[in-house]
Amino acid sequence: MEQDIELRDREEDYININPLQAAGRTYPETRIAIDSYVDGYSVCDWCNGALCKMDKPPIQKFLQSVSEFLDMDYSMLTNGCREAKYAVLHALTKPGDAVVIDGNKHYTTYVACERAGTKIYEVASSGPPEYRIIPGDYEKAFEKVKMETGKFPKLAILTHVDGSYGNVVDAKKVADMCKQYNIPLLLNTAYSSGRMPVDGKAIGADFIAASCHKGWAAGGGNIGLLAVTEPWVKQVFLPSVKYAAKPLEILGCSTRGSSTLALMASFPKVKERVKHWDKEVENARWLSGQLEGIGIRQLGVKPTEHDLNFYESDVLYRISETHKKKNFYLYSELKDRGIVGIKAGLTKNFKFSAYGKTREQVEHIAWAFKDIVEKYG
Amino acid sequence: MEQDIELRDREEDYININPLQAAGRTYPETRIAIDSYVDGYSVCDWCNGALCKMDKPPIQKFLQSVSEFLDMDYSMLTNGCREAKYAVLHALTKPGDAVVIDGNKHYTTYVACERAGTKIYEVASSGPPEYRIIPGDYEKAFEKVKMETGKFPKLAILTHVDGSYGNVVDAKKVADMCKQYNIPLLLNTAYSSGRMPVDGKAIGADFIAASCHKGWAAGGGNIGLLAVTEPWVKQVFLPSVKYAAKPLEILGCSTRGSSTLALMASFPKVKERVKHWDKEVENARWLSGQLEGIGIRQLGVKPTEHDLNFYESDVLYRISETHKKKNFYLYSELKDRGIVGIKAGLTKNFKFSAYGKTREQVEHIAWAFKDIVEKYG
Repeated sequence: MEQDIELRDREEDYININPLQAAGRTYPETRIAIDSYVDGYSVCDWCNGALCKMDKPPIQKFLQSVSEFLDMDYSMLTNGCREAKYAVLHALTKPGDAVVIDGNKHYTTYVACERAGTKIYEVASSGPPEYRIIPGDYEKAFEKVKMETGKFPKLAILTHVDGSYGNVVDAKKVADMCKQYNIPLLLNTAYSSGRMPVDGKAIGADFIAASCHKGWAAGGGNIGLLAVTEPWVKQVFLPSVKYAAKPLEILGCSTRGSSTLALMASFPKVKERVKHWDKEVENARWLSGQLEGIGIRQLGVKPTEHDLNFYESDVLYRISETHKKKNFYLYSELKDRGIVGIKAGLTKNFKFSAYGKTREQVEHIAWAFKDIVEKYG
Repeated sequence: MEQDIELRDREEDYININPLQAAGRTYPETRIAIDSYVDGYSVCDWCNGALCKMDKPPIQKFLQSVSEFLDMDYSMLTNGCREAKYAVLHALTKPGDAVVIDGNKHYTTYVACERAGTKIYEVASSGPPEYRIIPGDYEKAFEKVKMETGKFPKLAILTHVDGSYGNVVDAKKVADMCKQYNIPLLLNTAYSSGRMPVDGKAIGADFIAASCHKGWAAGGGNIGLLAVTEPWVKQVFLPSVKYAAKPLEILGCSTRGSSTLALMASFPKVKERVKHWDKEVENARWLSGQLEGIGIRQLGVKPTEHDLNFYESDVLYRISETHKKKNFYLYSELKDRGIVGIKAGLTKNFKFSAYGKTREQVEHIAWAFKDIVEKYG
């Protein structure tokens, strides 16, 4: 590969409504930190034995702040949310053990269970149009596992907010049920923590996995967090027998690069922004109302409780049947109007998020959809 | 943590001789790529199912070039070298299986084996002053494993170049022995590939793990590579049963951030620089000679065959006994002379690398040590 790297369409030039990226955009101070720590292993200049124990940069202190922020007892840097989930699975289960997950899970929850060799039991969603996860169904799944395998599952995993419909599950209800059955609960907060307030103790989660390049404005490389409650610290962060500072489940040190500094640099902004979550939901509801007004239907729970929403649109699909750019017209028309982030080729079903956008930008998004429908509809 | 991030002493201002960092320094074009892809999940703009299959950016094509470069059949992005090693261990072994490693291993080799639950057999080095790994000792270890467990080991791991002494092991001899016993060989090239030519087929390695933020000038976050030969592709990159594009051992997609672009941007330079490996060794040998001339003794194989070298110095240690900055004087005196990268506090035993430095800089390093010894000796 000798060709030059094609640079990306810069965020500065477009309103990016890709829900995977909307809350992962870096702040100016984050970029300065990344630039300063851009070289390999730069974060290890003052290593005192392990990444998570470091004082310079103050990673240990930062992780304590993260634990307070999530109201958990101990937090660890991981290479991402999937790696955090796998760490818990690997530490708690043996191949053949049963795990209960939800039907709205991210694919990585399933893949992490597969890699750990567990038997997967899935709590189905309510299906169209709401795709709700009913907390009570976890209890039924536990009983099913017991009936089929003779034992209750070793772990339950709940997607706090799913990445398809943006449904916010009542995690406390699931956690209460888990407590009754004495089954630990891992909460996947890839689409909640860093965007909206998440209080681990109030929920009653044993483990919280977070995606920080997705939801905590930490660019650079990929980075996540695993926060746990005290009773699980020893088992999940079991150190090497020979290298006492090195937890096995993160192979000693996880994010040994600029992504750690990026996360730290963004953290003050992230702590502040979750306080304004109501504004994000308000914007999402307003947008949903505007789009429904032109025949673009929001699926998932309504009124929405999250910035990410899934839409189904016959009107936009019908345009693609006669448009010379076919199903790529929507991507192109939105881009002409300064908007990127809906996957090229989609017209009938798509999701987007206006997370972090100004009211003016939110109104521009609504206008753009209306303008396209008016132009071709 | 409300305080601002303290920026790093920039590489531009110092000659950095930290062996962990010397070959991980980013090139200007790498920094441009990182800056362009700095936001979360930016690399997924044009996802067609999996990171390693992507055409835009051309990741799939890049990985084919990597396979050619290492003379292996298939390459995959990983979160780092340790994660690549664990992927092989997890795919090939079951808890209780035996694995043979070398005594000069990086701690992460040991920790990855522990995490996989394997029994670890270590081939000891020859000890001071050379700390050689004798290829023939692998055969003895295989026989020992057979005698003690009734079976030959499932995997052998060899540190191609160790991070303490910079000894280059004759990997072909170890690979030949592995072939005789039908035991697959994983070569840890954290300190070889990206710096010096590594030809997987000529060596006969089944797996090559690489550390790209360490040795391939890829900053950003942490990133590695796992290259394998054809017979192992299916087992090591086994896809999810449910998500066919997603290999279990990398949980679907590994380095889903700017680090992938960083690695790609640096690759043309890396391919070029390994051709000039002889110059790096020449510089290291010259430096070793200069330091030995003032009583600073090089350990490990002599003459050295690598840029990383370990030194033992009574003369520098004696100065620390009376210097007002005690054992921190060496760090401070070197920094005053524009050099960073030897761990603060060390005077008696330390390692460094002049990888990628100009001849003028190499001469400056030798001068600095001489000047410090003359000033206080």
